[in-house]
Amino acid sequence: MLIAKVVGSVVASQKDEKLENLKLLVLQVHGHENVPKDQYVVAVDSVQAGVGDMVLYATGSSARQTRLTDGKPCDAVVMAVVDSWDVGGDNVYEKWAG
Amino acid sequence: MLIAKVVGSVVASQKDEKLENLKLLVLQVHGHENVPKDQYVVAVDSVQAGVGDMVLYATGSSARQTRLTDGKPCDAVVMAVVDSWDVGGDNVYEKWAG
Amino acid sequence: MLIAKVVGSVVASQKDEKLENLKLLVLQVHGHENVPKDQYVVAVDSVQAGVGDMVLYATGSSARQTRLTDGKPCDAVVMAVVDSWDVGGDNVYEKWAG
Amino acid sequence: MLIAKVVGSVVASQKDEKLENLKLLVLQVHGHENVPKDQYVVAVDSVQAGVGDMVLYATGSSARQTRLTDGKPCDAVVMAVVDSWDVGGDNVYEKWAG
Amino acid sequence: MLIAKVVGSVVASQKDEKLENLKLLVLQVHGHENVPKDQYVVAVDSVQAGVGDMVLYATGSSARQTRLTDGKPCDAVVMAVVDSWDVGGDNVYEKWAG
Repeated sequence: MLIAKVVGSVVASQKDEKLENLKLLVLQVHGHENVPKDQYVVAVDSVQAGVGDMVLYATGSSARQTRLTDGKPCDAVVMAVVDSWDVGGDNVYEKWAG
Repeated sequence: MLIAKVVGSVVASQKDEKLENLKLLVLQVHGHENVPKDQYVVAVDSVQAGVGDMVLYATGSSARQTRLTDGKPCDAVVMAVVDSWDVGGDNVYEKWAG
Repeated sequence: MLIAKVVGSVVASQKDEKLENLKLLVLQVHGHENVPKDQYVVAVDSVQAGVGDMVLYATGSSARQTRLTDGKPCDAVVMAVVDSWDVGGDNVYEKWAG
Repeated sequence: MLIAKVVGSVVASQKDEKLENLKLLVLQVHGHENVPKDQYVVAVDSVQAGVGDMVLYATGSSARQTRLTDGKPCDAVVMAVVDSWDVGGDNVYEKWAG
Repeated sequence: MLIAKVVGSVVASQKDEKLENLKLLVLQVHGHENVPKDQYVVAVDSVQAGVGDMVLYATGSSARQTRLTDGKPCDAVVMAVVDSWDVGGDNVYEKWAG
């Protein structure tokens, strides 16, 4: 999995029927030190993530292992909203930091 | 999934029999700010996309989860035509603009 | 799928038994404007492609969806010989061009 | 598989139900000469690895072949703690080196 | 598949039980002209390859299609030892060259 920030969403009405009612999020990938990268992905939301949230997403066939994405033409899924992470003993990100 | 523009198509008569009657599109990948990248892929069309359309495509085994591509040697499928997307609260692309 | 040119072949006698009698081609990846890239892959031939042919290849589990490669430790397969393709309304490649 | 060092962990309470009770590790990828790379991944721990350990991780559908990750939306798993490795006849890393 | 040279091996005693008795090789990827790249992978050996051998390896779910790796958390397997290959009509590598 990689860490990313939810930065937007995609609207698509002409699509495979299996994708009806799935929310498509635009994610910007972040490095492990929380620096944004010039890399993005569009992922299905399975955890009611919102814009600004830091999330984890899974790709490939693993993206189809949620109840929402099972058997669907989806190769990336947001499967967790990140509360915090640490690197080298230091807290890098804290969702509820004031 | 990634966002791409349909820029062309491929004709191939000598091919695996499972690929008969599938339309092969040339896609140019775009960044989340809609800047074209020097990256392309050839994908099967499952949603009657046309040249100039902005689309989403899925790769890997997820590309075989449409009715058209099930069980076929296809690793990329166009599964949605994009109407619009936004990043950071701003509309980046609007199909019907103009 | 990506477009590539068949530039050679690999001989390997000490191999997994499932790979007996499969032809292994060396492919050089080309861009959508037909410029050769510094990227290659070795792929199983499923369509009797020859050296010099422009082909499409599929990777990952999709490479095992041909009759020849089913259930085999093969992650890339040539599944079509390209006749022609166009980009932006212009013909980029024509196999039978004189 | 690639070699990586465990450098941290991720906490996520809002997540797919299948991910309950899995430990999420932040890994920094190392080269075969043990030089850290500017590349990281978040992986599920299946072998009780700890911060500072050198590990092997597997990605894609292979990441779901452990008892802990079977059928879960997880695309990277730590499946071994590395004791040592050698390159060109020289020992590159030795866990128990004094 | 890609071509690589076997340059070393990895020892790991604390690992997923399915990985018992598998040999883990360090591979350095080579280009199609046989130039070593700054890219490596750790792969399970399924063909009794030795240090110095040029080999082919397969990745992803295809790496689990050998008798040794079936159902195991392994995403790369050496499935052939290369005898020779040619590019553009020229022999690039010959195992038994004197």
